[in-house]
Amino acid sequence: MHRYRSHTCAQLRKSDAGSTVRLSGWVHRVRDHGGLLFIDLRDHYGITQIVADPDSPCFKVAETARGEWVIRVDGEVKERGAEAVNPNLPTGEIEVFALDMEILSAAKELPLPVFGEPDYPEDIRLKYRFLDLRRDTLHKNIVARTKIISEMRRRMEGAGFTEYSTPILTASSPEGARDFLVPSRIHPGNFYALPQAPQQYKQLIMVSGFDRYFQIAPCFRDEDPRADRLPGEFYQLDLEMSFVEQEDVLATMEPVLRGVFETFAEGKPVTQEFPRIPYDVSMRKYGSDKPDLRNPIVMESVSEHFAGSGFKVFANILANDPKAEVWAIPAKSGGSRAFCDRMNSWAQGEGQPGLGYIFWRKEGDKLEGAGPIAKNIGEERTDAIRQQLGLSDGDAAFFVAGDPKKFVKFAGDARTRVGEDLNLVDRDRFELCWIVDFPFYEWNEDEKKIDFGHNPFSMPQGGIDALNGQDPLSIKAFQYDMVCNGFEIASGGIRNHLPETMVKAFELVGLDRETVEERFGGLYRAFQYGAPPHGGMAAGIDRIIMLLVGARNLREVTMFPMNQQAFDLLMNAPAPATPAQLRELALRVAVPAKKEE
Amino acid sequence: MHRYRSHTCAQLRKSDAGSTVRLSGWVHRVRDHGGLLFIDLRDHYGITQIVADPDSPCFKVAETARGEWVIRVDGEVKERGAEAVNPNLPTGEIEVFALDMEILSAAKELPLPVFGEPDYPEDIRLKYRFLDLRRDTLHKNIVARTKIISEMRRRMEGAGFTEYSTPILTASSPEGARDFLVPSRIHPGNFYALPQAPQQYKQLIMVSGFDRYFQIAPCFRDEDPRADRLPGEFYQLDLEMSFVEQEDVLATMEPVLRGVFETFAEGKPVTQEFPRIPYDVSMRKYGSDKPDLRNPIVMESVSEHFAGSGFKVFANILANDPKAEVWAIPAKSGGSRAFCDRMNSWAQGEGQPGLGYIFWRKEGDKLEGAGPIAKNIGEERTDAIRQQLGLSDGDAAFFVAGDPKKFVKFAGDARTRVGEDLNLVDRDRFELCWIVDFPFYEWNEDEKKIDFGHNPFSMPQGGIDALNGQDPLSIKAFQYDMVCNGFEIASGGIRNHLPETMVKAFELVGLDRETVEERFGGLYRAFQYGAPPHGGMAAGIDRIIMLLVGARNLREVTMFPMNQQAFDLLMNAPAPATPAQLRELALRVAVPAKKEE
Repeated sequence: MHRYRSHTCAQLRKSDAGSTVRLSGWVHRVRDHGGLLFIDLRDHYGITQIVADPDSPCFKVAETARGEWVIRVDGEVKERGAEAVNPNLPTGEIEVFALDMEILSAAKELPLPVFGEPDYPEDIRLKYRFLDLRRDTLHKNIVARTKIISEMRRRMEGAGFTEYSTPILTASSPEGARDFLVPSRIHPGNFYALPQAPQQYKQLIMVSGFDRYFQIAPCFRDEDPRADRLPGEFYQLDLEMSFVEQEDVLATMEPVLRGVFETFAEGKPVTQEFPRIPYDVSMRKYGSDKPDLRNPIVMESVSEHFAGSGFKVFANILANDPKAEVWAIPAKSGGSRAFCDRMNSWAQGEGQPGLGYIFWRKEGDKLEGAGPIAKNIGEERTDAIRQQLGLSDGDAAFFVAGDPKKFVKFAGDARTRVGEDLNLVDRDRFELCWIVDFPFYEWNEDEKKIDFGHNPFSMPQGGIDALNGQDPLSIKAFQYDMVCNGFEIASGGIRNHLPETMVKAFELVGLDRETVEERFGGLYRAFQYGAPPHGGMAAGIDRIIMLLVGARNLREVTMFPMNQQAFDLLMNAPAPATPAQLRELALRVAVPAKKEE
Repeated sequence: MHRYRSHTCAQLRKSDAGSTVRLSGWVHRVRDHGGLLFIDLRDHYGITQIVADPDSPCFKVAETARGEWVIRVDGEVKERGAEAVNPNLPTGEIEVFALDMEILSAAKELPLPVFGEPDYPEDIRLKYRFLDLRRDTLHKNIVARTKIISEMRRRMEGAGFTEYSTPILTASSPEGARDFLVPSRIHPGNFYALPQAPQQYKQLIMVSGFDRYFQIAPCFRDEDPRADRLPGEFYQLDLEMSFVEQEDVLATMEPVLRGVFETFAEGKPVTQEFPRIPYDVSMRKYGSDKPDLRNPIVMESVSEHFAGSGFKVFANILANDPKAEVWAIPAKSGGSRAFCDRMNSWAQGEGQPGLGYIFWRKEGDKLEGAGPIAKNIGEERTDAIRQQLGLSDGDAAFFVAGDPKKFVKFAGDARTRVGEDLNLVDRDRFELCWIVDFPFYEWNEDEKKIDFGHNPFSMPQGGIDALNGQDPLSIKAFQYDMVCNGFEIASGGIRNHLPETMVKAFELVGLDRETVEERFGGLYRAFQYGAPPHGGMAAGIDRIIMLLVGARNLREVTMFPMNQQAFDLLMNAPAPATPAQLRELALRVAVPAKKEE
């Protein structure tokens, strides 16, 4: 017989009754029923119940076993009596009567209980991650993670992609966030950088004549602590394709990611055909470029009903600013003064003067608009608004007025709030869509200059002609995001593969040819020697897993995360370097004296 | 029709004749046959011949096309005449008559030709890697690389393993080589380290209750330039299993790696059952723990024939040192004075006094041993040696004498040299074996102390009893290498999962409990809380690919390698950091003044 096991703890069934088996695993739980010992023995695969009574040859050993000890048990499989069957356990029809038991590894008193998963402070969980990972929920999340990634690989290969690894010790690339630097010992005073994303490399792979690249790519960004980001490293499903237009990338990746969602959605509905929503439309309808389409609320402009109306606040805003609009947030079933007042208070809490509303109720046979705005604009306008928004008895609408650029974020938040408070959001589904036609440039109000909207490597719609002739802020990019349930889960674009168009695009944000050559030398040089049209995208793997397993924190889907302060409590990193290490790297630490607090 | 292509450059066949198609790709080569233009159009998948004559509507454009330009061609598929068929090309039965052509991207004059792959200096190849990668051999090597890695994944999953990623920003771990350090901005004065291998993490994964881990793992070692190592990063197929003994790991991984070899061996024979050779036996038979078993030479001790013989040099060595032995390197077909003299000169070039030999030849009916040694020891002993080694007319044997510990490396080199010079090595096969039973400790002559032989995390054979009672230098480890054609391609061991055994093992090399706790805190702590017996190994992916594609340099199987001086010529890394970056990291660069040369 094998030294440690003949079966895993998930394998034995009624048909094995009578056979002698060997199991190894962790003591999940011990119950002492008056001299009769029940041990739930757990391994990676499952749990099997072990029984020992005082007649067991190994009873004395069994009595010593405690939670999380690792033991080997030899015993006889016995069918459980009908009343003792555990239907929740695949092995629930049998138990193993222990004949021999060996302690393979004892455990000290546990700083973190495994059985039952009681809530515990996160710093303890991270320091004793090897215990935390034995807990059922986290263990399952991590297994799901590996299955999801494996499924992504399978589907990408099925779609004709090949996985290529790109270097991790590379050059600093100014992509928005800070680089992690790695001092070079052989070239003292010089530094490698860890890649924020393999953006330049994947484009170089296309220029090198490979056709469909993908990678489960580790990415590194030295950012300040953020609740929705893992400090340090995270993973992207990164991909790039040659000889494609935007619709090719969308049509290729939509089935891949829909398939991944469907495989792990556990029956929840997944969008079959992802709508392609232009950025401008998304901002207007949902107040966000990451709309949660589970929320059925669609905002609309109702400016015409307020222009010149008796509600002077809005009428004046519209009269004084040609860019001003009034947007309505329809709120089906929100038609009570209590709810409308609650929303108004919430808006004040958000720093707004308030949130205007109308709500409708039946007075006798008549639908009546209630609230101060309805009074001010009169019955006719009130009903025109109701009809435009398709509202009825018991519904409400909220209104924001001003320059949409300035209020759009608040309007989007209000839409979310209304949808959630009124339970209009169906949480048990995955609503996916594409946001397309992002602005290529945006206005940097602080520096009074034009900046890239998102990715400087994207192709502007209209190409170099648009760059030469069009108002830069009106230029769209061949750039797209995939959004699920209000989260951006992927982002990509068709790249600018023409060196002169690249130079022109950077010129408009104030960077000259020399700067482009210096910062993006490898890529800029490559484009001089026959570059194919190409494009791709990158999906946030951690975020997708989080959505699929329903976790609320990235650390719940990551095996060995650092804490929010970018400290690894398990391995004690980062830590000081030795003087010898610093000398070899030609570095001195110069920590500024701390300010008095 | 699609914007760029209806087919790839490898798809069209005779059956497509008559249809109108669109292709995109690189101009591989242009030939002008008196006004008739032939363009070999190349993409990732293959090559298709384009034809344009002066009647082609796009002839003027076609005339401008140069090597490595990216073009789109619309045209009509035509069957080639029998005399023009190219049997070496899957598309060799057709050509495409060009009707329309678009230059998608022109190329400047090429610093590195793609067509024909002429030899070029490596620094040019690395700087223009995107051109180098378009060359047929390197392109194919990289595609093979991705396929080999994908096959490894497939087979590991088939063997019940699950892929888990381990952190890349982690703690410094003293595993032999130098760590790359990453300064922390949030914790100034502190450093992360890049993992030299995921050794501690994979053991922690086992302690966390997962059962069969693997990972295509990036590893980082800051080593001085070495011809057989890529500077910076390299990849391992890393794996670990719980509840196993040594033979379980061997029996699990042998079919996985044999399968990978068989899949990519292109018909070359692959060892079906890997011999398990104890370290001591391998050193004695092959003079190496990485024996090339394609070389049929097996060394043997022939001390008894020299003890007290007339060849005083060897007789005295044997008489004066009880550890001394004489080893023979049999050399079938090496029986000529010219070859024996050549080997003797080679040995002198290696710093040896010479290499004694006997060679046998027929004199009339009699087999005669020739050379000075044969003369000195006489006919009877000479023939006894011949018989022991199974040699005959036209064969030779070489001899080394002294303390085997001191001469074994030279003896191994001589065995290799003889095998290669006499063409005894069958190059067209993959000979794989396991080397087992490595010494747990070794003697450090410089520091006059005991060191770990290989991996300090291995379980000593005999466990804590052996550590307490046995001569440390006689203790074997549950540790094993996989060797192919003279290269170590994988290494592993059963781990020491018992904290007290671990402390004792380190004590013998002079490190106390506190040091173990400090250096391996995560792992040492984990072992206190129920650790399963576990073991695993790691295979060198780059090396395996090199063997399989027959490349002589790791840079020929790596997409974007650094040069031998750990410099990335494509991306210009490493490079100086900005003062702002250094300030944020609380670092100062202190490069020592260079010495006058």
